This record gives sequence, structure tokens and C-alpha cells, in this order.
Amino acid sequence: MSLEQEMQTLGQQAREAANRLRSLSSGVKDAALLAAAARLRASRDLLSEENAKDLAAGRDKGLSSAMLDRLELNDKRIDGMAEGLEAVAALPDPVGDIVGQTVRPNGLRVAQIRQPLGVVGIIYESRPNVTADAAALCIKSGNACILRGGSEAIHSNLAIAKLLTEATGEAGLPEHAVQIVETTDRAAVGALLRLDAYVDVIVPRGGKGLIERIYEESRIPVVAHLDGICHTYVDEHADLDMAHTICVNAKLQRPGVCNAMETMLVHETVAQAFLPGLAKALQDGGCELRGCPKTRAIIECAEATEEDWRTEYLDRILSIRVVDSLAEAVAHVNDYGSHHSDAIVTEHYAAAERFLDEVDSAAVYVNASTRFTDGYEFGLGAEIGISTNKLHCRGPMALRELTSLKYVVRGTGQIRE
Amino acid sequence: MSLEQEMQTLGQQAREAANRLRSLSSGVKDAALLAAAARLRASRDLLSEENAKDLAAGRDKGLSSAMLDRLELNDKRIDGMAEGLEAVAALPDPVGDIVGQTVRPNGLRVAQIRQPLGVVGIIYESRPNVTADAAALCIKSGNACILRGGSEAIHSNLAIAKLLTEATGEAGLPEHAVQIVETTDRAAVGALLRLDAYVDVIVPRGGKGLIERIYEESRIPVVAHLDGICHTYVDEHADLDMAHTICVNAKLQRPGVCNAMETMLVHETVAQAFLPGLAKALQDGGCELRGCPKTRAIIECAEATEEDWRTEYLDRILSIRVVDSLAEAVAHVNDYGSHHSDAIVTEHYAAAERFLDEVDSAAVYVNASTRFTDGYEFGLGAEIGISTNKLHCRGPMALRELTSLKYVVRGTGQIRE
Repeated sequence: MSLEQEMQTLGQQAREAANRLRSLSSGVKDAALLAAAARLRASRDLLSEENAKDLAAGRDKGLSSAMLDRLELNDKRIDGMAEGLEAVAALPDPVGDIVGQTVRPNGLRVAQIRQPLGVVGIIYESRPNVTADAAALCIKSGNACILRGGSEAIHSNLAIAKLLTEATGEAGLPEHAVQIVETTDRAAVGALLRLDAYVDVIVPRGGKGLIERIYEESRIPVVAHLDGICHTYVDEHADLDMAHTICVNAKLQRPGVCNAMETMLVHETVAQAFLPGLAKALQDGGCELRGCPKTRAIIECAEATEEDWRTEYLDRILSIRVVDSLAEAVAHVNDYGSHHSDAIVTEHYAAAERFLDEVDSAAVYVNASTRFTDGYEFGLGAEIGISTNKLHCRGPMALRELTSLKYVVRGTGQIRE
Repeated sequence: MSLEQEMQTLGQQAREAANRLRSLSSGVKDAALLAAAARLRASRDLLSEENAKDLAAGRDKGLSSAMLDRLELNDKRIDGMAEGLEAVAALPDPVGDIVGQTVRPNGLRVAQIRQPLGVVGIIYESRPNVTADAAALCIKSGNACILRGGSEAIHSNLAIAKLLTEATGEAGLPEHAVQIVETTDRAAVGALLRLDAYVDVIVPRGGKGLIERIYEESRIPVVAHLDGICHTYVDEHADLDMAHTICVNAKLQRPGVCNAMETMLVHETVAQAFLPGLAKALQDGGCELRGCPKTRAIIECAEATEEDWRTEYLDRILSIRVVDSLAEAVAHVNDYGSHHSDAIVTEHYAAAERFLDEVDSAAVYVNASTRFTDGYEFGLGAEIGISTNKLHCRGPMALRELTSLKYVVRGTGQIRE
């Protein structure tokens, strides 16, 4: 069977599973998730063995110690996966929720009801726990999923998927509710992205190269964020101590993630008072600064180029621009940003409201660190990704975002005149 | 300036207009819509003159009388456009609606707020009133739009767009809130579909050829329905008189539209009692019937091929299949249908619920004609299209479907630990 045919088969099986999953009760789905958690906990030895193969291959390939660390499945991480499955089982099931019903003048009752999307394709890199996390969210929301993990974690991913499939199948889920692409052939990604007859949405998780390729190639709608070029704007009416704390946190608490600050904008009337102290704190934290000419007139740092405003460093680097108005700050964010997460620090009511209103991003903040853009921090109880798309959903994506609204119309014989 | 450059300019201007439209109050937008309605009413002579050019060109090109009728702007249709603008002004504005707010344990207030999508590209055929209708929905929902109408209506469309732009500009809307593609060069459609840097969604309205081309070529998300292969399933527990009335209505009340019935499924236990009377009524209405072998054992008709089950006739033709169970009916609808609108006629509670649950379509019905799938009939007050996509929205698309939810997070200095 060719790769293309194999992927078609996965797609068909997923679609059939989705047709059955759509109508399963929460009770069955939750029992399956709990059974899967128990199976993972009971299979530490198997998981460690398979994971050891990936680690050995990784060492042979010369993967960095950071990469090897991400790849490792130790007892704590196996527990973490099991706890993740249990946590998803405990979340409310969005399927079947009625989102409004109106009765029309002719007596038709028109309701919108949440339904699973159908088949979700998930393409991810490195960390094997994504296999369990993503499968759990799809199961809970009644979707079948096709998982394609990174080749360096193939043994771990196959082992996790096999345990999940066995346990959930015994608990009453369709056999093909969770399927994993077994080959590490890179062409399988392309074949998956062409399964538009069977797959309803692609959710990629990984670096920019992966996401760009997927947006470029996919014939299936993709929900993801490509860049996280997040801004914090320190307004002329900011509490400068608060601004200092927020900016240090947004930049340094975890610089390698999408919701970390990459560019700071400072109103010119507070730049002199604010920048020197902040620069010291960031430089003490190992952060390189790149500033506009007005910034460099106040603190010593490298020159920020046009390219800097468009760059997601994912590192201890910050570009800084002094602006002469809130309007200039908003324009900078909307023009150069990636519409992910952007914050204003201000004590001024109208400035806060205007920033919230005019900045066109998935998440806009007043007086808080952009680091909170995350399904758990926003109270969704989970996260399968973050969307900077405007269609379907923006921001953290969890169970509700894996559903769609279907019109359900109940009549008593109505016909159109 | 090349076509590509011209389209880029339209895109940039639309994006700038969208950045201003996002924050406009309903008062300003409604006043602009009412001013536009008044301007259309006051410009009958101009509109008739320009429309006459299109009609003359259409006659020269040998357009059918049905096509010429769709093209014509008479007094009644000009009033209709103006009334449409006024009706949209009277609808509630979805922008700014808060869809839930939670307060997190750390005190962060996390809300979701409706915002315009940004820039909407609308590609349509023939009827010039779409120019006014689509522009009105975009203005009201705070979106900038780029309109591309059919070449046969170019003079009418340009005249309508010019009047709208003048009137709404005087009323305080950005100059480029509504823009129309002025060339009839077909390459402009391709160029519009590549404006993914500026355009957030494409809403096509027209025949299958147009929609297929757009889905194929677009780099921008498309929301539309490609086919309307709608089914009515007459269950073994149907009230056969009601089923008769509903099926005749769904097939014949307006056969050329997307929500008309194309395939009828009948449970075998009622086929003998139901089919002869229905066949007579449909054949009396000029409808050709094509049946499966079991159907043809009961009534005289042509043979339905595999191709028939996958065909949207948009005409007085109906394919009929006798099924032996509800499960077979559901499987037929999910496999062969286009996931648009599908109905069951039954008096049996569990059969109704099962059909509603298991059929995976934008609109599912019990005991009513599928002809009701329409923004006005569903109470949305308007319609810019119908979506059979699962992402973003399913079913009739109106003002709310032209918006997206943005996370708005209000803090008091919170940082991530």
C-alpha cells in the first residue's frame, strides 16, 4: 500500500469513528479517559523501554541536552500525562450544549447545538506527552484524531498511542478514535494535509518552520499561531513600578514561549524615568536590548532595525521603541505585531479602554503580563494550541474550540410559502 | 499600475479603513446606512441609466431572459435595496457584545468581546442588489469590504458602490470602508484571493463553478457552501400527509435554490403507501423522478445512478431511495449529502432525536421543509451567505458571523509566577 493510500485509510477510519463519537455520552468518554490514565500508569516499564530507544537514537544523532530533556519520559512525566487525562475527564463536556433557541412566528423552534468538529489532525514536534494531551482533548470533545508526532519521539509516541487505543477501545470508544501515523516519512505530513475529504481541521504545534509549511501546504483549515510578537506599551500614565514588574516578567519569566514580550513601547514622557531602571534589571537577567534612536539617547544599547520590530526572538533579547502617543503605540502593535497578545500599562481609564478597543489581537491586556495567554491561565482547563486566526477562534484553544454549532430545527409540519 | 498593484492598494486601504471601523459606534454606522438608503432612493435616474447600459450589453451578448431579469434594476428593486439598508440599520449591532467574563483566582478578569473580522472580500455574480446588501452587513458589523461583482452588472455595481461610498463617507465612515473592484478583468479575482495580508475572509456568492474556483485558489479562508444536496427522510413512523406536504414544498416551492430537496429517502414499510401519491403530485408539478430498484418496483420512473445521489440538480428532478432503516437513511445523508440541510419526517420521538443527533449537517430538521435554511427564516434578520464549513460558522451567515471573539484581560499588576 502506498503512503498516500495508507493515509487515505487513516482518514476513512477516522471519519467512521467520528460518526460514532459524535453521539457518545460524556459518561463513556470520561470512563475511557480514566481507563487510559490507569493504563499509562500501569505501563511505566513499557513506556520507559520505548522511550529509551528514542533517547539512544537522539544521543546518536547528537540532539542537544535541552532536546533530549524534552524527549525524556520519566516517572514524573508519565504521572503528568495520566493526570492530564484525568483532568480532561473532569472538565465539562461542551457537546450538546444549546447556544440559544428562538421560536419563529410560524412556530419553528430554531436552536444551535454544539457538536464535535469531526476529525482533527494534530502535527507536533518533540515532546511525547502531546500525544496523550491532544488525544484526551479530542476524545472529550467527541472528535476522532490523527496524530503525527516528531520522528525523534516515534517509539514513545507509538507506545503511548497504542496504550490509549487499547484502553479506550475496551471502554467502548471506536477502534479508530485515536490513530497515529506510524511512519516517520516526512511525506506523510503532506499526505495528511491533503486529506480534506476526511479531516476537518489541522492543529499544528511546533516551531515556526513547521507552522509555516503547514499553512502553505494544507488543503484543510489550519488553526494555530505562526508568531508571537507580543508587545507591552508603558503609557504616560503608567504606574512605573507596576510597569517594571510586568515588563521584567513578560520578557524574562520564560523567554522561549510565544506569549513572552518581544518589543516594549514606552511613552516619551516617562522614558527617561522608566528606561534606565528597567534596562538594568533586564541586562542583569542576561537580556540584550535593541533600541530606537530615542531609546539610545537614554540608555546604552544596540540599534533596533526595521527587522527587529518584526522578529520573534524567543530569547533574551528585547527591542524597545519610544513613542510620542498612544495612537503611535497602537499603530505599531497593529502594523508590526503578530496579533497574539499585547498589553498596556496605565492608570488612565480612557487610555486603557482605547488600547483594548483598537489593538487587533487575540488577547489584549491592561496592567498584566502577556504571559497569561494560555488555556489554563484563562480558565479553560486545558489547551490544544493558541490561535491567531480570526476565523473560528482566537486565543487559547481547548474543548469548546474543538466544536462547531449546528442548527437544529424542530417543526410540526411547517412549509415555506 | 499593474492589476496586482491596484489590488494591493485596495487591500491596504481596506485594512486602514477596518482599523477605524472597528471602533465606530452603532450610531455612526446606522446613520451611514440610512444616508446610503436615502441616496439610493434619490438616485433612481442615475441607477436606471447605468443599469440600462448593462441590460443593453447583456442583450447584445445574448443573455437569457432569466439572466436579464436578474440584472434589471427597476423602481421596486431600488426600493428593495434601500429597504435592505434600513433593515440592517435596525438590527442589533453585535460588536462589543461581551460573551462571558470570568475572574481568575489571581484577580485577572478574562472576557471575550465581539469584534469585527476586519476586511471581508465578497465575490458574487449577476444580481446588482448584492452590492448594497453585502456592503450593508459589512458596515453594520464594522468590517471593511472589497466587492467584486459579475462583469455583466459592472455599470450598475459601480453606480451603487459610488452612491454608497459618497453617502457613508459624508456620514462619517472611512473613505475606503466599501470598495469595489473597478475592472472586469477576470484576473482580478485571482489577485483578490492572494491578498491574505489584508483580507480576513472571502465570502463568495454564486454558482458552483465560481465557488469551486475560489475554494481551490484562495489563500484566504473561504466561508460558503459549495453544494446543497438536501435530503428529506420519510420515516416509518411519519405522518404521511405531513410528509407529502413537506416533500412537495421542499422540492417544488423553488427548485433552483440550495436548500431545495434533491434526494428523498423513504422507509420501506411506508414506501408502498407513500410513493404513488407523492410521485403523482411531483410529476404533476413537472418534476422528473429517478429511483432506486425498490422505488421502481412501486412507481414508474427512471433509474437513479450512483451519480444521482451526489448531484445537486437545482431543477425539477428528484432522486428517490427506499431504505430499510433509520440507520441506512442517516448513513446515506452523511455519505452522499453536502452537509447543508436535511430533514426527517416522523412522529417517533427517538427517531427524531437520533436523526438530529447523528446527521452531520449545518441544519437538521424534524417535520419541516428544508427550504427554511435562510438567515431571515432563522431570525437573523439578514444573510450574507450560508456556510457548510464546520469551522467558524455553519448555516446562515449574518452579522454575528462577520465577527470574531477577542480576549480582553483586565489586571491590577498580575505577573506569571
